[in-house]
Amino acid sequence: MKLKDMNERDIISTITRIFRPETIDIVLPCAVVGPGEDDCSVIELGEGRYLVSSTDMLHEKTDFPKGITPWQVGWMSVAVNLSDIAAMGAKPIGIMMAMGLPPNTELDFIKELSEGMDACARQHGTCIIGGDVDRHDELTIVGSALGLADDGYLVRRKGAQVGDLVCVTGELGAVGAAMDSLRNNLEAYPYVMKKLYMPVPRIREGMALAQTGCLTSMMDISDGLALSLHDIGVASGVGFCINAASIPVHRTVREMADSESRLVEWSVYSGGDFELLFTIRAGCVERARKIADFTVIGEVTVDGIFLVQNGRTAVLEARGYLQFGDKV
Amino acid sequence: MKLKDMNERDIISTITRIFRPETIDIVLPCAVVGPGEDDCSVIELGEGRYLVSSTDMLHEKTDFPKGITPWQVGWMSVAVNLSDIAAMGAKPIGIMMAMGLPPNTELDFIKELSEGMDACARQHGTCIIGGDVDRHDELTIVGSALGLADDGYLVRRKGAQVGDLVCVTGELGAVGAAMDSLRNNLEAYPYVMKKLYMPVPRIREGMALAQTGCLTSMMDISDGLALSLHDIGVASGVGFCINAASIPVHRTVREMADSESRLVEWSVYSGGDFELLFTIRAGCVERARKIADFTVIGEVTVDGIFLVQNGRTAVLEARGYLQFGDKV
Repeated sequence: MKLKDMNERDIISTITRIFRPETIDIVLPCAVVGPGEDDCSVIELGEGRYLVSSTDMLHEKTDFPKGITPWQVGWMSVAVNLSDIAAMGAKPIGIMMAMGLPPNTELDFIKELSEGMDACARQHGTCIIGGDVDRHDELTIVGSALGLADDGYLVRRKGAQVGDLVCVTGELGAVGAAMDSLRNNLEAYPYVMKKLYMPVPRIREGMALAQTGCLTSMMDISDGLALSLHDIGVASGVGFCINAASIPVHRTVREMADSESRLVEWSVYSGGDFELLFTIRAGCVERARKIADFTVIGEVTVDGIFLVQNGRTAVLEARGYLQFGDKV
Repeated sequence: MKLKDMNERDIISTITRIFRPETIDIVLPCAVVGPGEDDCSVIELGEGRYLVSSTDMLHEKTDFPKGITPWQVGWMSVAVNLSDIAAMGAKPIGIMMAMGLPPNTELDFIKELSEGMDACARQHGTCIIGGDVDRHDELTIVGSALGLADDGYLVRRKGAQVGDLVCVTGELGAVGAAMDSLRNNLEAYPYVMKKLYMPVPRIREGMALAQTGCLTSMMDISDGLALSLHDIGVASGVGFCINAASIPVHRTVREMADSESRLVEWSVYSGGDFELLFTIRAGCVERARKIADFTVIGEVTVDGIFLVQNGRTAVLEARGYLQFGDKV
């Protein structure tokens, strides 16, 4: 069978079965959270500290949208990696950038690219600590971000409990709207284009929320809200009931949408919004609101993932952004 | 200026100048050893412990030689990353693998690739802790290896002192010989082909040697002995006098060489031998010999890098394997 005939999650599970910690001899030092299990892998450092790490490959053909500047490519490459660190509630301590560069690339391009990387890292309290450069036909950038979290404040996908509230940071749908504008050569609204070109990793919010000790699960919604709900649902063994009217959407995105179903498509089923999705114990919400902005969009239930819209309850499908295949 | 008109080290220094820790605000957590400075970056974890990390991009067109199996591609991708951890004297604690995979790739290829990665990691006391899969036109694999070292046992490129002895692990020249065989369609000797397809990272030797407390500098010689000597020379502010007759070369490689200059070309100026080059205080050599095999090939001097061969002393040139440009 060829990869193009498979969906991405089946490919990942084939690979991770080979790497699974449980198949590794007990004497080997291994990850507390291993491949394919969460936004980051987690290694116990002892003395109640955990090292979290994540790697992400971006490349010209699939990841850098039309109109993006070299500086923004650099920013984005760091941001998507830091977003995974944020999703664990961890503090970033460094990021490595491996770059595959076409020989015809202008040196100025590389300078701007590197400056964008540097700016994104610094603005989120960390720095570029190393990397690699390689000659490559297609501009390919692989970041590897590292972070630290203390015991008790590491938030995983696993842990959501029935009755917890489901929340998201920021506003959703802007990147779906931006991608649709690009695809259809429509007017590019600056608000959504900025969201697309310069995603902001929610490092501050992730750390602050984790330190309340009230979060029961968290991940970023880079593949879209729908797939992320399904991922947390599977990891935690729970379901969700999401209220469509509660999903935070910027007024520009509302203006751009020609129908309510388009709005749901952008805010629920499109990837690229690097916001955090988390569950929190209901009694904690007021306290958490004092330290970070977020919106409650639903509740953790026993099973099934549903979207309530205009008084009707429908199954929230498991679809969104995937590298391989066109559905999960 | 385009990258193809520049040499690799100038490209790296352009990039790393942008990321340099000294330009970063003092309140930011930063690396003790930053980009471009050593085989790994180093972050201080406190309590006398250091986190070392390294990332390496490999891809089909430039890194996977003719005849290599998918399993060996996996092995090699992990090995080259672990070699950087070995070069710091650190203990590997995990490795992430980001893979760009062509859609026409067979699933069995990915399974064998992953099994090769897994085998190399396990045989060196660690495991694959995470990664990423991405659709890509060219098979591209980026590993990011993590390791730990205790204070006093972290070995850097900086630190060689005049009078120290210069040593290498294993035997050199096999990969240069193998590459020449492939290029010229000559008979492939199994010994050299195995060295090319399945490099062995010197994790055990790196850790054991570092723990003698006698090493003053170390790096791996993936870009060749000559470039590595120049790198340590610059980092430590010293020179070297290397005795060509002392450079350890396997008898198969000797047999394959049609001249002495070919032998020097393979063992001094070719990359791909993932051995360790290190300097050690002269009084420690006997003690170190009890815990690891290595060969003394020369001495640290005040300046200049020279090769003594058949009673003649000549400048040891700074050339070897580079991704961009054809000379440093």
